[in-house]
Amino acid sequence: MSQFEKKQLTKKSENISGWYTDVILKSELADYAPVKGTMVIRPYGFAIWERVQEILNPWMKKAGIKNAYFPLFIPHSLLEKEKEHVKGFSPELAVVTIGGGEKLKDPLVVRPTSETIMYEMYAKWIQSWRDLPLLINQWNNVVRWEKRTYLFLRTSEFLWNEGHTAHETEKEAIEMALMVLEWYRKIYEEYYAIPVVLGTKSDAEKFAGAKTTYTVEALMPDGKALQGATSHNLGQNFSKSFNIHFQNREGKNDFVWQTSWGLSTRSIGGLILAHGDDNGLVLPPKLAPTKVVILPILGKEDEKILAFCKDLKTAIEEGQTVFPGEVQVRDDPVKTYGWKVNDTELKGIPLVIPVGGKEVSENKINIKFRVKELQDTVVDLNSHNVAEKVEKALSTMQTYLFEKAKKFLDENTHTVTSYDQFKEIMAGKRGFIQAFWCEGAACEKKIKEETKASTRCLPLDAKTEDGVCIYCGKPSTHRWIFAQSY
Amino acid sequence: MSQFEKKQLTKKSENISGWYTDVILKSELADYAPVKGTMVIRPYGFAIWERVQEILNPWMKKAGIKNAYFPLFIPHSLLEKEKEHVKGFSPELAVVTIGGGEKLKDPLVVRPTSETIMYEMYAKWIQSWRDLPLLINQWNNVVRWEKRTYLFLRTSEFLWNEGHTAHETEKEAIEMALMVLEWYRKIYEEYYAIPVVLGTKSDAEKFAGAKTTYTVEALMPDGKALQGATSHNLGQNFSKSFNIHFQNREGKNDFVWQTSWGLSTRSIGGLILAHGDDNGLVLPPKLAPTKVVILPILGKEDEKILAFCKDLKTAIEEGQTVFPGEVQVRDDPVKTYGWKVNDTELKGIPLVIPVGGKEVSENKINIKFRVKELQDTVVDLNSHNVAEKVEKALSTMQTYLFEKAKKFLDENTHTVTSYDQFKEIMAGKRGFIQAFWCEGAACEKKIKEETKASTRCLPLDAKTEDGVCIYCGKPSTHRWIFAQSY
Repeated sequence: MSQFEKKQLTKKSENISGWYTDVILKSELADYAPVKGTMVIRPYGFAIWERVQEILNPWMKKAGIKNAYFPLFIPHSLLEKEKEHVKGFSPELAVVTIGGGEKLKDPLVVRPTSETIMYEMYAKWIQSWRDLPLLINQWNNVVRWEKRTYLFLRTSEFLWNEGHTAHETEKEAIEMALMVLEWYRKIYEEYYAIPVVLGTKSDAEKFAGAKTTYTVEALMPDGKALQGATSHNLGQNFSKSFNIHFQNREGKNDFVWQTSWGLSTRSIGGLILAHGDDNGLVLPPKLAPTKVVILPILGKEDEKILAFCKDLKTAIEEGQTVFPGEVQVRDDPVKTYGWKVNDTELKGIPLVIPVGGKEVSENKINIKFRVKELQDTVVDLNSHNVAEKVEKALSTMQTYLFEKAKKFLDENTHTVTSYDQFKEIMAGKRGFIQAFWCEGAACEKKIKEETKASTRCLPLDAKTEDGVCIYCGKPSTHRWIFAQSY
Repeated sequence: MSQFEKKQLTKKSENISGWYTDVILKSELADYAPVKGTMVIRPYGFAIWERVQEILNPWMKKAGIKNAYFPLFIPHSLLEKEKEHVKGFSPELAVVTIGGGEKLKDPLVVRPTSETIMYEMYAKWIQSWRDLPLLINQWNNVVRWEKRTYLFLRTSEFLWNEGHTAHETEKEAIEMALMVLEWYRKIYEEYYAIPVVLGTKSDAEKFAGAKTTYTVEALMPDGKALQGATSHNLGQNFSKSFNIHFQNREGKNDFVWQTSWGLSTRSIGGLILAHGDDNGLVLPPKLAPTKVVILPILGKEDEKILAFCKDLKTAIEEGQTVFPGEVQVRDDPVKTYGWKVNDTELKGIPLVIPVGGKEVSENKINIKFRVKELQDTVVDLNSHNVAEKVEKALSTMQTYLFEKAKKFLDENTHTVTSYDQFKEIMAGKRGFIQAFWCEGAACEKKIKEETKASTRCLPLDAKTEDGVCIYCGKPSTHRWIFAQSY
């Protein structure tokens, strides 16, 4: 499609899944790649992922976690060392059988996750409690086979961070897993502007090989859940399989206690779904690659207007919030003003400042929000610091998006006491359902078969209560969250 | 090996290749991974690569180049579109034949480089001159099959940047390729502290599918060349194979002009070889993850000494050059002072500041250089700004390493006029040889067979002269650089 054609967008309000693909392609976040199940993350989409890395890296660094790089290829024999793990991942593997023109004796698996290859090395590196904790993270690509692509949300290859730590005690490992869970909550709520529920996964839904899987779960506008990120207490499952033992402070031999955790580019799918509208993306300021666009209204006195725009850009960059590159003057003379307005909406630019003859002569501008519910900020440049006003507007918009999403989450979290009610909700608007469950795998399976809703998590703050399982009626002590999911 | 054993190092002066592997393993830059041909980049090694990314990213960004991510898997049929390209890479491919438990109809190649997958997308994205230039870079992993691992320098999988640009004219493409070459020169000379020769590759040595390959060539201490990085003018070879055409400013249909270029983790191998000594790594300050280590000499008045060290660290961090995390106080009470001194040498820490009772009482310190040829900087803390002194010492060391390497390069670049002389040098200390060559493939091949020396490049600044080919005696106009290479 030429860049000059009008980018007619499917309406989110009418067809969310059609809108989702459409808005990603048209805003140039991503594109389909030649191999089924794969996608290209285009510069605009990748810039969001770079922001995520810039946010998480310092948190990890401060906690003593260091980045490293482990190989892409894992010998199949190595993957088999942890039984649950290999069982969980086998159906999704991509396997290299030819290397350098020769058939390989031991086929190589393209990493679906790196526990096995990393822990084989950890066993070599760890001897004593003095080598602990060992705290390593990778930013890399992993492959889990998919035949159908759903951009960002379901692709054979995706990017993520995978952290892998080894500790002297289980207490330390649990603390680490929960600290990371808190980072994931923070990045979702304070950066993605998406409220999440923190909890633990059921045995059926936990990571293959984990003792406990902690999760952050978000609710999308179509009432389906998105597993935002997970953090696992691996216990000693892998350390026993991979023989990662150490001499403890008492001089005795012990196996290390481990965690692993990850946040993937899938989260960008959640970001798009959560905030976008009929006109395109809506990006929360803290993750938006371009935060402000200055739009000259050209025609008369163009030089004066362009000089004004340039000064305005400089003034905004002088503040603490918007860095060079995050504010753009769109002065391309070939495209019309109307086209540019549509394009800033499509791309979800948080703030737009139109500048015409009136703005120049009055030395006064209007900061317009991408979301129509927020009123323009009028800035008299004679008396106001524009950088501060922009900073405030960005912060207002960030807060607005979170609160709107929080309201949606609250309104679509249902506490139900009957299975009929449960089924009715899942057949209708969906959402999160809080319901007692006996924690038996059979009930969980039946509920999923009948309503497509799986257990999402047992919230960390769930109270112990007296209740009965929504499905079998047996005594139950906790309300779990159920939802259909991506 | 326990961290308390003495890390006895092979001597570089006696066995450079043994030393190389030994120093990498013992300084914990990297380790062998379970699959032949692969390696793990450990946190200390990966931190150097992160520095490289931090240096190159802003240069690229300023030039309008954006980062993105393209898939790991390339259909074999796509790779075949450019004949020279597929011919060049076929022997090195890793091929996925099984996905999700099923045999694939079209096997997938694990990218050895991304021209083909990227240009398939470029053909879709580019319609008009208004879509040009298209400037995209990736930081990713690529696979070129190797059976033997030589850490960093030869591994089946390596990390790199790969930039891929498309332009309206060949002139623009050449300018881009040369601008990137200049970045590569700059990062090698000003950051890696390794002098390089810039030039063009011969037809036999150029990138499979390129019109011209520009290269930066470095000389290692054993007299062998390292191809530091390359930048290719692809002409219209790929745009014609991939049908990347556009409507030009005159309204006519034309094929784009392209470049691609890359710098890989192989460069870290060069860094290690170039500067290290019998005691371990020597890292140039601008790439060293830890720039300064403060070493308390404990025993008496420990509290006073440790407080002094802490203040010293803060004072150093207050300057413009050393950021928090780049200066460390090594106060671990378990390890001895001597062990720590050896360890800072092994790890190539540029500056070490010992702090004992004397330093505290006199309020005066010695900044010791990793290289013994540089004399200690004495800093009287009563009258001097320690941050400035550290900054100056780091700069002195950076310059010293470059100049030392430059001297080595100059002393080991030989201009020869007879093939006997050529053979004698290649059988002895090796180095760069400047010699006339007729530019015929037959002579190039013979010279390589007989001396193991290949053409490295025709220097960009080579003069046109009258000479005769060192091998066949035919008239020749340029002196090429020959060397044995990694």
